[in-house]
Formats: sequence, C-alpha cells, structure tokens
Amino acid sequence: MVTDVEDSHAGIVSPELVVDALFACRKTAAIKAAIELDLFTHLGEGKTAALLASAMSASERGTRILCDYLVVHGFLTKKSGEYRMAPSTRMFLDRNSPAYMGSAVEFVAAPEVLDNFLRDPAAVVRNGGSAGLANLSADNPVWLKFARGMGSFTGLSAKILAGEISGWGKPPKKVLDIAAGPGVFGIEIAKVFPSAEIVAVDWAAVLELSRQNAERAGVADRYRTIAGNAFEVEWGTGYDLVLLPNFLHHFDMPTCAQLLRKIIASLAEDGRIVAVDFVPNEDQVSPPFPAAFSWEMLASTPAGQAYTQGELTEMAKLAGLAAVIVKPMPPTPASVIVFA
Amino acid sequence: MVTDVEDSHAGIVSPELVVDALFACRKTAAIKAAIELDLFTHLGEGKTAALLASAMSASERGTRILCDYLVVHGFLTKKSGEYRMAPSTRMFLDRNSPAYMGSAVEFVAAPEVLDNFLRDPAAVVRNGGSAGLANLSADNPVWLKFARGMGSFTGLSAKILAGEISGWGKPPKKVLDIAAGPGVFGIEIAKVFPSAEIVAVDWAAVLELSRQNAERAGVADRYRTIAGNAFEVEWGTGYDLVLLPNFLHHFDMPTCAQLLRKIIASLAEDGRIVAVDFVPNEDQVSPPFPAAFSWEMLASTPAGQAYTQGELTEMAKLAGLAAVIVKPMPPTPASVIVFA
Repeated sequence: MVTDVEDSHAGIVSPELVVDALFACRKTAAIKAAIELDLFTHLGEGKTAALLASAMSASERGTRILCDYLVVHGFLTKKSGEYRMAPSTRMFLDRNSPAYMGSAVEFVAAPEVLDNFLRDPAAVVRNGGSAGLANLSADNPVWLKFARGMGSFTGLSAKILAGEISGWGKPPKKVLDIAAGPGVFGIEIAKVFPSAEIVAVDWAAVLELSRQNAERAGVADRYRTIAGNAFEVEWGTGYDLVLLPNFLHHFDMPTCAQLLRKIIASLAEDGRIVAVDFVPNEDQVSPPFPAAFSWEMLASTPAGQAYTQGELTEMAKLAGLAAVIVKPMPPTPASVIVFA
Repeated sequence: MVTDVEDSHAGIVSPELVVDALFACRKTAAIKAAIELDLFTHLGEGKTAALLASAMSASERGTRILCDYLVVHGFLTKKSGEYRMAPSTRMFLDRNSPAYMGSAVEFVAAPEVLDNFLRDPAAVVRNGGSAGLANLSADNPVWLKFARGMGSFTGLSAKILAGEISGWGKPPKKVLDIAAGPGVFGIEIAKVFPSAEIVAVDWAAVLELSRQNAERAGVADRYRTIAGNAFEVEWGTGYDLVLLPNFLHHFDMPTCAQLLRKIIASLAEDGRIVAVDFVPNEDQVSPPFPAAFSWEMLASTPAGQAYTQGELTEMAKLAGLAAVIVKPMPPTPASVIVFA
C-alpha cells in the first residue's frame, strides 16, 4: 500500500508516473475521439458542451466528459462552462491551422498499430522484436494510413532537407525516393530543383497518394513511380541523389547495409545517398523522441531500431562506404544522414 | 506543417502535448511489458541489459530497448550501460516494496478494458456512454482482474476509511460491503471492529478472492458472502454500516438513488451508508484524477461518471436522504462520502 512509505518520503516519491503510464491509453483514446469528431475545429473561439455537442452531432454528456478530460490534460481550458483551446491545441489540432497534425491519429493510433504494442508487449521484449513481420508484411495497408496521416509529421523535415541539399552546389537531375510514403521528401526536392526528375518507390496503394501529392505540388510531369518491395524492384541507374526517408529504422544492420549496396550500384558518378531518420545519442536514452523510437520499432518490426551515429557509421562501413555525416533538423526530432 | 508557425512563436507552443497523447499507448505497453516480465524486481540494485535479459529470460536487444524507453520516461536511470530504478519506481514497481502497485496492470491494461477505450472512442462520445454494457455485464470476468489487481490502489483508502469510522463511537455489528471486489474495505472494518460481522456482495468468482483475503487477514470467521447483482440479491436487514466502495460511479443518478433506497430499507436503526469514490470539484476539471475518472466511466459503462458533491447531494435527495458529507482521503485520490 502507498501509505507509510509515501508519508515518510513526503513528496520525494509519488505514484504519479506509474499511474500516468498505466492509464496512458485513455489519453490516446481521448485525443483520437476528439480528432475523429473534429472537436477542436468545431470548438473555434469557444463553446459550451451543449453547443459543441450539437455541432458535432454527439451526446452532450459524452462531449462534456471528453472536454473535461481534455482540460485535465492541458488541451482545453474551461471557464463558466465554456471550453477554449490552449495555444498548442489551436496550432496543431484545429483543422484551420497550417500546422494541423491531427491526421497523424489515423496511423499512430490505427488499430493494427496499437495492436503491435498492446497485444503482448512482454512477448515483444522476450523475442527482441515483433511477432511475425508486423508492419513489414508486403503491401501492408497500414502504409496507406501512414502516407495519409503522417505528412504533417514529416513535412517540415522534408522542407528542411530540401533547403539543406539546395546548398550543395550541383543540382541533382535524377532522384530516387525510396519508401516515398506521402512523397513529401521527393516533392520538396522537385520544388527546389526545377529540372530534377523524381522516381518514387513504395507499395502500389501508397504511390497513388504520392502521385496525387506530386500533382497538387505541380511537379507531376517530373514524377515517376515504381511499385514494390525496395529490396527487390529494379529501379535502374544514374541517380544523382537517393533519398531514404524514415526507412532504415525498420531493418537490422545487415539488411540496411544490403540495401545501401543496392543503392550504391545505382548511383551516378558523385551521386549521394541521404537518409532522414531519428538518431539517438550514443547513450541511446537522449534526445527523448529519437531514443524512444527504438521501442516503436521493437514492437512493429522484427529487427528495426533507431540507429546512433556510431551504428550508422558501422552500417556505412558494412556497405563499403567510408562514413556518415549526421545533422539534426530542429525543431523536428529527425536528422539528415549523408552517407559519404 | 509545424514549420513557420512554431518558429514565430518560439517556444510558446509546442507539439509535445499532442505527440505525447498520440503515442501514449506505447507507454502503457512498455509499463505492461516491464511489469509482466517483473523487470523492476529483477533489476534490484542495478544491472546491464545483458544481465537483466538473462535474469528475465528475454532478448538482450528487447531488454535494452525497453529499458532505454523507461529511462526516457523517467522510470529508470542509465549510467555506463547499467540501469537503476528511480525512487518512485523502486517504491511502486519493485515487488519487494510494500507499496507495490504493479498488479494493477492486470485490470487497468486488460485487453477488454483497453478495448472499451480504443475500439471506437468517438462512438463513446457520440453515444454518451459505452456501446453495450461493457464492464457492467453480468458476471463479467474483468471484475476478477479488478479484485486481483486493484487491492494496491484501493488498500490505502480502505485503511483510511476504517480509521475514520473507528472515531464514530458505537461500533458497527453488522456490515454490508457492496461490490466488495478484493474485499479490502470490509476486511479493514473487520480488523478495526473485532465484533463486526461482514457480509460481502459481488459476483461469485470475485467473492472467492475476497474470502481468501479475509482468511489471510484472520477475519474469515466473521466474513459471509452473497453472490449476485447488487440490485437484485436479497441481503437481509439490520445493517449498522453499509459500504459502497467505488461502486456508484458505474451508474446514472436514478440507478444510484434506487440502490440507495434498497440499502435504506436494510439499515438498522442509526445505520449508516458510506461510499468511497472519486469526487471532482464542482468545476468537474479538478483535482486531476477524480475529474479524469468520468472519461474512464464514459468508456466502460453505459451511464456512469464521477459525481461532484452537488450531484451526490441531489442523488441523496432522490433517495429520500437529507445530505452527504464528503471528506477527501489524501494522499489517495478518493473521498469518503457519508449519506446522512
């Protein structure tokens, strides 16, 4: 029981962290409900539970209880029965904000993704990886959810990456975007280099979306797609730039090295390989998001993880390359990794 | 995209809260894995991932990644590759601690409980309650998990309640413990009042455990059980004290009032009804745990919630009672509610 022990340490120890973790799924459920009901957009400048419920075609009781929960967790404020958005909520969860990231819930809280974690997390630790292929099975429909939902998470790093590469001098003409997903990385490169041709590789269903996004960005005439498994498809040669956005973390080091060797064989002279990924410090426990990301991969892939700079260097050497340059891309938790 | 907007507000807004909520299920999965593997108890005074993995018969890679995640979230520290428990972790998650609360994971993160929240949380808000009876179906086996897992959560409030009642003067002789669960409330009363007879009501499977706990506490000779639905079973009359620990929050107000009327009819002269529950302030958004608890009930019951003192007073009046006295029981998030 909590009793005596806690009293004798007066404030030094508290069950708060444990209780937060035990109940944390409730928070995901609440934010998922709110995003799916588009609660924040409906809330606008502020509403009572009754008005908000009516706007969302939801029960007033359910709306009031969800809103109160969102107040407890800092997403809303409540005054005289009227709820309002906290500044970060307005920025990231109101659909009218250019920084809206609510669509991420479709992937991050997809039933099959949550199942990777919650079905039997102890087994994941015992095995040292997911039971079966999890997210890595062929044509897994979860990647369409990724492509639809995660552009808001990866969009900023794509812009930063394109800016970075634009400073390199000689513009790339032929660009391979491996595991393109929503396509944002290749598309930003296409926007920065008006003569670049992008070849995007991903599962067929995902590429339909990448192509739509390329059209929307006005670069469709320079956008080609190749559907299939990145380890198996023929993508030709002569690439000045090969992008590996958020891809290496799905595989073990020999598999990554094997992919790098395949890429090397398709490079033009002076061609470059550039990955975007979450790179923890060598202590593997900082910064928070990149360090925590290995748990993400432990549960959703058989052998993936977030690689440190030391491990990326080892990976490069395994592939016959000399070194890697890692450069963080604040304010995103991602880094650009140049294989040299 | 996060980009410009975040830059222009430099630090005022951050996606941290949103990202934390979106990914929160990962935290529940990690703590569930760690508790099920008894990671904290195995860790003892500190171990490397290799030694800890061997002690848990788990993969070293899986163990290292889980431990790093637990460092990121404040449960462990890491130094020279050796992990150690933070003080709160040692207090609440090491099985050797008298304050161990790891067993709560069996109920709080039970698949069927998580499913109440995660299957379709938006529907819960639209409906204003769970789809179907959820936790309230007859003989629902989830209550055995509750009884097994939640003694560590409710044990302290049971001790505080018994201490409170011991100051009331005339000792109760016949005590009814409704929805006894692990039995801690009735058992603590039995320990404080050596001539009190306890009658515990709950589902049959749960009462087996309550009875075992009564035996362990040395009060089995004064412990009787009645299996069944509290709204339907005959429990007789002449009760000096009726306990309603963590029960009212499962039902709507008319149902609670109906139960109170049934209880009133079974009281001895000067008999008292005492509930233990989470009582939010009238603003319904503080203190955090009681206020957040209504979301717990929204998802897992058709019409339950945490009641404020004002609502409890209304409930008492509906049942023909005059008033309620509410008294918080720090450091627990629960309050004692005396119906007068």
